[in-house]
Amino acid sequence: MGNKKRVLTGDRPTGPLHLGHYVGTLANRVRLQDQYEVFLLIADYHALTTRPEKADILASREYIREIVLDYLAVGIDPEKTTIYLQSDVPEVCELTLLFSMLVTLPRVERIPTLKDMIRDQKIENPSMGLMLYPILQAADILHVKAEIVPVGKDQESHVELCREIARRFNSLYGEVFPEPEALIGDVPTLPGIDGRAKMSKSLGNAIFLSDPPEEVARKVMQMFTDPTRIRPDIPADPDAPHNVVFRYHEAFNDDKAEVEELKARYRQGKVGDVEVKRRLIAALERFLAPIRERRAYYAARPQLIDEILAAGAAKVRPISQATLAEAREAMGLSARRLAELKAQLP
Amino acid sequence: MGNKKRVLTGDRPTGPLHLGHYVGTLANRVRLQDQYEVFLLIADYHALTTRPEKADILASREYIREIVLDYLAVGIDPEKTTIYLQSDVPEVCELTLLFSMLVTLPRVERIPTLKDMIRDQKIENPSMGLMLYPILQAADILHVKAEIVPVGKDQESHVELCREIARRFNSLYGEVFPEPEALIGDVPTLPGIDGRAKMSKSLGNAIFLSDPPEEVARKVMQMFTDPTRIRPDIPADPDAPHNVVFRYHEAFNDDKAEVEELKARYRQGKVGDVEVKRRLIAALERFLAPIRERRAYYAARPQLIDEILAAGAAKVRPISQATLAEAREAMGLSARRLAELKAQLP
Repeated sequence: MGNKKRVLTGDRPTGPLHLGHYVGTLANRVRLQDQYEVFLLIADYHALTTRPEKADILASREYIREIVLDYLAVGIDPEKTTIYLQSDVPEVCELTLLFSMLVTLPRVERIPTLKDMIRDQKIENPSMGLMLYPILQAADILHVKAEIVPVGKDQESHVELCREIARRFNSLYGEVFPEPEALIGDVPTLPGIDGRAKMSKSLGNAIFLSDPPEEVARKVMQMFTDPTRIRPDIPADPDAPHNVVFRYHEAFNDDKAEVEELKARYRQGKVGDVEVKRRLIAALERFLAPIRERRAYYAARPQLIDEILAAGAAKVRPISQATLAEAREAMGLSARRLAELKAQLP
Repeated sequence: MGNKKRVLTGDRPTGPLHLGHYVGTLANRVRLQDQYEVFLLIADYHALTTRPEKADILASREYIREIVLDYLAVGIDPEKTTIYLQSDVPEVCELTLLFSMLVTLPRVERIPTLKDMIRDQKIENPSMGLMLYPILQAADILHVKAEIVPVGKDQESHVELCREIARRFNSLYGEVFPEPEALIGDVPTLPGIDGRAKMSKSLGNAIFLSDPPEEVARKVMQMFTDPTRIRPDIPADPDAPHNVVFRYHEAFNDDKAEVEELKARYRQGKVGDVEVKRRLIAALERFLAPIRERRAYYAARPQLIDEILAAGAAKVRPISQATLAEAREAMGLSARRLAELKAQLP
């Protein structure tokens, strides 16, 4: 266990997880936990950077629980993956402040994802917390000395900033931090049920892992289909990107022969949209039923969720304290705080 | 004691304190400690915002000791004034992060002192830590719920930001913080020995509280005098601002009759610069000798300095933790961290 490389990954608690998350990150996390020591962060401080309103915080408290249920339901094993809540480990705030001395404002302003976020969400006056968030993310990664950070292509620039911070710290004060590498997966994005490029809670086009069967069926039946195919006997291309029903078949239907057969009949104009959708509903049910079952098991034991998060924090905290002690010792900061941090270590 | 209003004030550990500090802040702090509950912060995180180099941090560690000696030497009483090191109370980092969500970048960029500092120190690319420092300062003030902040006129804008943060927090999450008031003293600035407007270590024009007698004498003898008064029998105006020797007489000579007599003779052209300076040396010695004596007493007991800072941190820490617990509870953040903070309280 100790020799495995460490991975840090996480989510903001802004809503329950959906099929897009499964395809984009969850499936990969389930695989990673056998090969690496995985830290899975629920980033509640990050959620504040764009939504500091009280109502959002209260909603996010609910989502934290839902997200842990989603993790457990898809097969993330808390024995292998350390699931923890960001704000349960406040040492990350101290490290963020120390790192903020090593990064310039223009450098942060140049980060593409931050620029995109500010543009897409039409944020006229970004909060200092939002400007700080790539640095907080670097602290998330470095306080557990993660060496690997699975990210989408668009998040690569954050890992690059993290590497810069590690390098700058090490060159100023001595070797403390690894330079983490981005594990840029071939991360497929799942289109929304409305045919838009990305499934997202805020776009209202998501099928959630926690959706009951009738909800899944309803969403599949209203799924976007080729508007030019007005009759089932019109031959069409199932591989065209706008044919989202087939994208879902490819991602979730374990019966590959059925998918090929449906595609062949679709090309020949020998299948109606309703049949393709009914088969997708059945396939999604095969996929979601065991997830729903595990979810129900844990949902009936709310105490377990608390215990998992408490165990996660208890595991991360000494790692974070040890890293912070090492960083402060290298910098030459207050001996008293250093002694305190060291006294907390096991 | 509990009914006294709280005051927060402090210094960056960037050098030993000098006569300019005495006139500007120290004399006032000695007075304030009888009327208020004073928290006196040595701001070592703030020092990093412009000087994160290792050598600066190590120097600042030395200065922390010198500054505490200076405090004790001028009569700041650790029984009345809580002296503590900023980075011994890491809860302030957590509060800073939370506050950073409530302040926009443009708001920070508009702060006049920050703009001046960036211009004066020719900082081309300010660090995020520097941009964050007014927010950190607000957290310094608010984590002890200080109601009064003695500042120079130029620092008023920082207290205004602090008041805004308190208001914004209270309106979003409920009444937690007081809106501190700036106590804008009629703070006299002491000119440097070179005649420049302000005494400052970095300008090399300072007489330090810790200077030995011969150093004080040497500095007074090289003090700037009116270059047009080439002979002692030339009548001149002792109240002209450039006559710095008289500014020092006014600030430090307890023999007011002597000062008036010297001024009268100066107006008549009946006293030489050397005599005026010799009398200033004597006056400064009357002022500095007891300070030097108390300083030597504490300097011979280095353990005492440690104990004072440890006692300061031990007093501030539970106050800071209680405030943070209250803030996090009002925001509705993680129950686990809240329980931990509450468990730490006496």
